[in-house]
Amino acid sequence: MILADYFMKEALKEAEKAFEEGEVPVGAVIVSGNTIIAKAHNQVEILTDPTAHAEMLAITSATNYLGAKYLEDCTLYVTLEPCPMCASALNLAKIGKIVYAAEDEKNGFMRYGTKMLHPKTKIDFGLMNTESISLMQNFFRDKR
Amino acid sequence: MILADYFMKEALKEAEKAFEEGEVPVGAVIVSGNTIIAKAHNQVEILTDPTAHAEMLAITSATNYLGAKYLEDCTLYVTLEPCPMCASALNLAKIGKIVYAAEDEKNGFMRYGTKMLHPKTKIDFGLMNTESISLMQNFFRDKR
Repeated sequence: MILADYFMKEALKEAEKAFEEGEVPVGAVIVSGNTIIAKAHNQVEILTDPTAHAEMLAITSATNYLGAKYLEDCTLYVTLEPCPMCASALNLAKIGKIVYAAEDEKNGFMRYGTKMLHPKTKIDFGLMNTESISLMQNFFRDKR
Repeated sequence: MILADYFMKEALKEAEKAFEEGEVPVGAVIVSGNTIIAKAHNQVEILTDPTAHAEMLAITSATNYLGAKYLEDCTLYVTLEPCPMCASALNLAKIGKIVYAAEDEKNGFMRYGTKMLHPKTKIDFGLMNTESISLMQNFFRDKR
């Protein structure tokens, strides 16, 4: 298994935790030098906090771990295209690279384009998007 | 003194606390039914967390206080135009109204326009902008 696959699988495991907890199933991991330094999943409902997206919790966790407010040498793997709040937070954190699985045409940051990110941040997407989309569809099917 | 002035003064007091702690001096309060339910100031440096803007901390605090993830009946008073991260978070929180003092042409959310906010969110700005600008100028002068 290539490393990127492994990291996205870990993000998907986080998304599954969110699913089991009745949260919109989004998971994220942050990697520094091939080591996972933060894992998080969406906790909006349990924390009754609209800002508690997986990416936000992962950024706070990773910066705490590193004792630094920038994540230039880190990669975020996340199961869904970040929303504008999370993309702007990733900009402030100067994240090195973002890899997201599924696109989010309705709520994703790409409505505003990549100018929302730091100019040095690299982007990749589509990795394991089938698994991520399937998890989201199961979640919203159960909700109806 | 009209109530809006009182609330913005409280936000300015929070900004002054940030100033004294060596943080970019931004302060915020969230008001529900003429009562302040959350106060916060920028804590990016002390928490080494790029997401620890005054508005984000105030949203988390207000939703915790109310035990609800939406702030439809609340007004945020903040000393500086929110950045896109905070504006998007205020959108997710469906905040009723935002009043900001100084504009932030470089980093403010208005670069993207009001579509970044919830369609029902009202906006006002300019209240005590002189005091807010003066605090920011003193801060950045000291840094040079």
